[in-house]
Amino acid sequence: MEDIVYGRNAVLELLASDPEKIEKIYTQFNTGHHKLKEVLITARRSKVPVGKARLEKLGEIAGTTKHQGVCALISTIRYYGLEEILDTPRNTNPLIVILPGLNDPHNVGAIIRTAEAVAADAVILVEGKGSPVNATVHKASAGAASHIRLCKVRSLAACLKTLREKGFQVVAADMQAEKNYTDIDLRQPSVLLMGSEGEGLGARSREQCDSLVRIPMAGCVESLNVSVSAGVLLYEAMRQRLV
Amino acid sequence: MEDIVYGRNAVLELLASDPEKIEKIYTQFNTGHHKLKEVLITARRSKVPVGKARLEKLGEIAGTTKHQGVCALISTIRYYGLEEILDTPRNTNPLIVILPGLNDPHNVGAIIRTAEAVAADAVILVEGKGSPVNATVHKASAGAASHIRLCKVRSLAACLKTLREKGFQVVAADMQAEKNYTDIDLRQPSVLLMGSEGEGLGARSREQCDSLVRIPMAGCVESLNVSVSAGVLLYEAMRQRLV
Repeated sequence: MEDIVYGRNAVLELLASDPEKIEKIYTQFNTGHHKLKEVLITARRSKVPVGKARLEKLGEIAGTTKHQGVCALISTIRYYGLEEILDTPRNTNPLIVILPGLNDPHNVGAIIRTAEAVAADAVILVEGKGSPVNATVHKASAGAASHIRLCKVRSLAACLKTLREKGFQVVAADMQAEKNYTDIDLRQPSVLLMGSEGEGLGARSREQCDSLVRIPMAGCVESLNVSVSAGVLLYEAMRQRLV
Repeated sequence: MEDIVYGRNAVLELLASDPEKIEKIYTQFNTGHHKLKEVLITARRSKVPVGKARLEKLGEIAGTTKHQGVCALISTIRYYGLEEILDTPRNTNPLIVILPGLNDPHNVGAIIRTAEAVAADAVILVEGKGSPVNATVHKASAGAASHIRLCKVRSLAACLKTLREKGFQVVAADMQAEKNYTDIDLRQPSVLLMGSEGEGLGARSREQCDSLVRIPMAGCVESLNVSVSAGVLLYEAMRQRLV
């Protein structure tokens, strides 16, 4: 699933040529080395996530001590373009899941697994946000990450705009919503937007939704695990579509 | 959530007096020390789970180096008796979740969280099987483990027998089942029996079920994450009960 590129010049060249192939860069911080600073600046500009790692960790990731303080995880996943997904739908009324910033790779993997199980058209991720699609995601997805179409977009706002123009309704779960999730029609072309763990959805994303729906909570806890919420919503879509 | 008891005699005494309070024992293996052997034998007899741990790990758990090769995690959870749960139902038609051997504490926690969210009557665990209700379970449950009634039974078979005698239908998810999970009536007193990760349910447990139901899978993956499956089933019960 993953290749590793290490060394300051190698990572800088990759950042210049194919930044979209990089899942994540791991580097030492505060070393003062000018090329490592350049890596940080270029990565931020290209929206590539950067993680801090100590020397031993870098050695483990790179599989060598010759990493010069930096290595990059390269995805061997084929990401589909949004156009391609919309031009070749899998369902008459497509169903798309967007994960704009989930941090826990177990949640990302479990949601990809559920999305594949209901034959959703695609799972869309946002560049530079949330967990990279790493080995943990693959494992948690039970291999589904290799079967479902994955797409990475630069801008969530632009992606939602395109999808709405193409006739999709955008639905998100929200604790304060009045409408029950079983009361909306999920048989039409639909996007399920899942907020990140803890924080949920930002105000701006909320404004771009056609429906905010509530998963009823009858006990003391305020919310469900996000992969459970996604499962409840995706299977409600499937239930409606099978009736 | 947890207390620690360490030292060979202290753990042996606890095993003799209150074995049901012990979530798990951690010990060095193969030391040849007769008291550690006695711990292993007594723990097995009392169905207390035992894990192997190296010296450093034991030091971390005990918070001291004076652990003498063994420590026990003590649960401060109040476990309810099965009778007590049946005598004081929370719902007119009670809903109970049984987790007979889930190994991943994140799954156990997420399911407890969902069960609490749908105001299920109780979550039943089986002594000596699966993950102990440890700090990871509590965290993954978002605190729900302190709100829902938890029960530990010695024998799954006896527990299912009692529940069926009391008028509960026992339902389990099974990939090979013919009936769709939306096609059974979950408004009556129901038990949801969730198989362990990977292996699912044993043949003997299957025989004790009134209904095996299928969660439809329309893609390549064969199953869902168990906490997602539990969420789909529990929310189907809630959907039916709210209609």
